[in-house]
Amino acid sequence: MKMTDANPTTVYKGRHLSMLSRGGWEYATRNTARSAVGIVAVTNAGEVVLVEQHRPPVNQNVIELPAGLSGDIAGKEDESLLEAAQRELLEETGYVADRWSELMTGYSSPGLTDESITLFLAEGLELKGPGGGDHSEDITIHEVPLGEVLEWLQDKPAAADLKLLAGLFAAQIALADRIGGD
Amino acid sequence: MKMTDANPTTVYKGRHLSMLSRGGWEYATRNTARSAVGIVAVTNAGEVVLVEQHRPPVNQNVIELPAGLSGDIAGKEDESLLEAAQRELLEETGYVADRWSELMTGYSSPGLTDESITLFLAEGLELKGPGGGDHSEDITIHEVPLGEVLEWLQDKPAAADLKLLAGLFAAQIALADRIGGD
Repeated sequence: MKMTDANPTTVYKGRHLSMLSRGGWEYATRNTARSAVGIVAVTNAGEVVLVEQHRPPVNQNVIELPAGLSGDIAGKEDESLLEAAQRELLEETGYVADRWSELMTGYSSPGLTDESITLFLAEGLELKGPGGGDHSEDITIHEVPLGEVLEWLQDKPAAADLKLLAGLFAAQIALADRIGGD
Repeated sequence: MKMTDANPTTVYKGRHLSMLSRGGWEYATRNTARSAVGIVAVTNAGEVVLVEQHRPPVNQNVIELPAGLSGDIAGKEDESLLEAAQRELLEETGYVADRWSELMTGYSSPGLTDESITLFLAEGLELKGPGGGDHSEDITIHEVPLGEVLEWLQDKPAAADLKLLAGLFAAQIALADRIGGD
């Protein structure tokens, strides 16, 4: 049974997150309606920069790509997705990158939320700040060789955000294409 | 600021999805509290079996791994994750597999939902049914060479579920390890 394209109705409005219903199908949406970005940042040593933080919905530490929402800073509501990715990378990891490319956009869980994430590849990294996130965040940074991330994750007590692996998949194809095209 | 480990409170209970709050952090959770499974099913020709369906939360068609919830069939509430994966693969794609391995478990979006997914690799496929999902689903099946999925997705009007790419990343490492170990 194909659902209708009916406009959604808000069934509950929280402070940051709301629940909508489209054709009777309930789903979660952020109140800001901002797009999310995630960054696969690769150091000159071939290590990917990951962040670990406690996530209240799952009540444990999770390893993720540096990520955030575009336009969620007062005065920067109109920033582009690339500008948001650059800001988040610096805030969370302390790195700036001199080469950026957009990898892809996809949904994180399209059966229960309309959240979409645009993934970027960042290279030519230089440490310019302390990282660690904004005042509301408590972030630990890890740098892991690109080819060893899955094995490394399996030895950690923290859980994995599957978007991290999606980003690595897209990044390795972009990196292989570039080597192939040189 | 690290959030507390306080038990969550239900701030809204929908028919299938609810919104909880833990330490003031709102998130979505399925009412069933069932675990989700996703399957990277690879044919003997080296093609991965993907499903395309309309997703009301994003109001468009999305390409995904065959996936579903464990224990969501009356009388099968106690099925294991592997049994759920086997059932979902048959329901959605018509395939049975003679070799199964568990790849990993991770979160789809741990900032806004507690949903976790366990990913399986299924090989030795044989077509045994029509696929297409249950009475509530309208699923189109695609079979795409493993190494061409990202390129193939970019030419499709449908969007991608990022968990699909996460599954491919984990599957290719498992397949490479096996070849390396033979």
